[in-house]
Amino acid sequence: MSKVTRFGVSLDSNLFRRFDALIEGLGYKNRSEAIRDLIRDRLVAQEWESGTGPAVGVLTLVYDHAVRELTETLNSIQHKHIDLIIASTHIHLDSHNCLEVIIMKGPADLIKKTADRLIITKSVKHGRLLTTTTGRRID
Amino acid sequence: MSKVTRFGVSLDSNLFRRFDALIEGLGYKNRSEAIRDLIRDRLVAQEWESGTGPAVGVLTLVYDHAVRELTETLNSIQHKHIDLIIASTHIHLDSHNCLEVIIMKGPADLIKKTADRLIITKSVKHGRLLTTTTGRRID
Amino acid sequence: MSKVTRFGVSLDSNLFRRFDALIEGLGYKNRSEAIRDLIRDRLVAQEWESGTGPAVGVLTLVYDHAVRELTETLNSIQHKHIDLIIASTHIHLDSHNCLEVIIMKGPADLIKKTADRLIITKSVKHGRLLTTTTGRRID
Amino acid sequence: MSKVTRFGVSLDSNLFRRFDALIEGLGYKNRSEAIRDLIRDRLVAQEWESGTGPAVGVLTLVYDHAVRELTETLNSIQHKHIDLIIASTHIHLDSHNCLEVIIMKGPADLIKKTADRLIITKSVKHGRLLTTTTGRRID
Repeated sequence: MSKVTRFGVSLDSNLFRRFDALIEGLGYKNRSEAIRDLIRDRLVAQEWESGTGPAVGVLTLVYDHAVRELTETLNSIQHKHIDLIIASTHIHLDSHNCLEVIIMKGPADLIKKTADRLIITKSVKHGRLLTTTTGRRID
Repeated sequence: MSKVTRFGVSLDSNLFRRFDALIEGLGYKNRSEAIRDLIRDRLVAQEWESGTGPAVGVLTLVYDHAVRELTETLNSIQHKHIDLIIASTHIHLDSHNCLEVIIMKGPADLIKKTADRLIITKSVKHGRLLTTTTGRRID
Repeated sequence: MSKVTRFGVSLDSNLFRRFDALIEGLGYKNRSEAIRDLIRDRLVAQEWESGTGPAVGVLTLVYDHAVRELTETLNSIQHKHIDLIIASTHIHLDSHNCLEVIIMKGPADLIKKTADRLIITKSVKHGRLLTTTTGRRID
Repeated sequence: MSKVTRFGVSLDSNLFRRFDALIEGLGYKNRSEAIRDLIRDRLVAQEWESGTGPAVGVLTLVYDHAVRELTETLNSIQHKHIDLIIASTHIHLDSHNCLEVIIMKGPADLIKKTADRLIITKSVKHGRLLTTTTGRRID
């Protein structure tokens, strides 16, 4: 089991009250949990800035499946990065629109580059990359 | 088949050259496609700002599956929003860490609220919401 | 003098070590100060999301001063919002380019709207709004 | 006088109508101007990502002027970067709170680093860096 460290934070009483109101509004049960989330979010941002080490990225692509050869193009790009892509979920949003959610794990820079290639593909209506973490060094 | 409109853009020749260099570097084959992507991204941003109409959001949660009752808690929150959640993909990142990718479709505001509730759950290491589109009004 | 509150945060020892490394790298002398900054940044973000209460915004405009009537247009828009604009600093970046830094204080929504009007003015090359705080409720 | 280039953009008629509605709502008089703004904003983002070449940054600091030695500390840091800082505007927000708006021009990386040092200074309530451009290659 992992060890726990405890440290004290001192801050102005007014700031303290406003923070408590904020996190209560968000639904936090616990002040430590809110502080941990602020810390983790900063660390994940830094992981992506540095570009080093393994990261996790989730790419979304929205497109019309009826467009000729689009699915083939997207598949062929993905197959070139088979070691980066863990899974891909396909959702039929309506009779025309598809959402593809592609989960990648690997070097941050490589994930970004692969995402760019897929996003710029003609007839992809909207593409966006979410940057998260392997969780390994975020406890 | 959908109709196509064509319009002209005039801009300073230097700006034009820098734009061409940028999109060539990104891999675009086609100037129109690059412009369309800029337009669509702005429209999707506005869809989320206004909060109205159906939107698509993808939420990622990274957590340690060994934490007692965490999976149950996350599931029970999701089940309360069964009409919002289309699908959920679970990835085993390593022996401890899990990635859950939850795909939601519905009112932007409701997606945000549900995402907040899941993100703040104790022992979720990192949660982030990606905001995209149903594609229905983005052609 | 303002009162100080002290509270304890418990977190995983590995997370604690990574946080310490991060803030040492940034140059923080003090763990409490780093936590306060994370809290304040979140509160300022919320002030702007809610749109209520007085906020402070700084708008930058980059433009070519030689463009006919541009300065007049920008001035006349600013004069319509005289109660919002505290000060405006003008920098000559080079023989052509000017930077105008417009400091505004007032309702967040009104600041955004005024910034939009100035940013979209023809021949403004780049406009961006920075959102900060009056500091009054951020101690 | 600078030369103008004209190029054609083809896009789906529905996308075209939505774009027109969006920019009319924002107040644009002119479709080309809206497209130019989308292009410029992307170019400025790239200037900062690459970190090379001269950039312009505007840093805001909100703090309580009554805090002992704070003004001296902030001044002494600024004086070490005299070649980077063009101007600094000081606003008295209320009897306690000050806003300092520091305009910098130079290498993007150096601006970021200097901003970080000032932002983390103890008793600075809120600091944020806005990234814009010298305008020189953005026409």
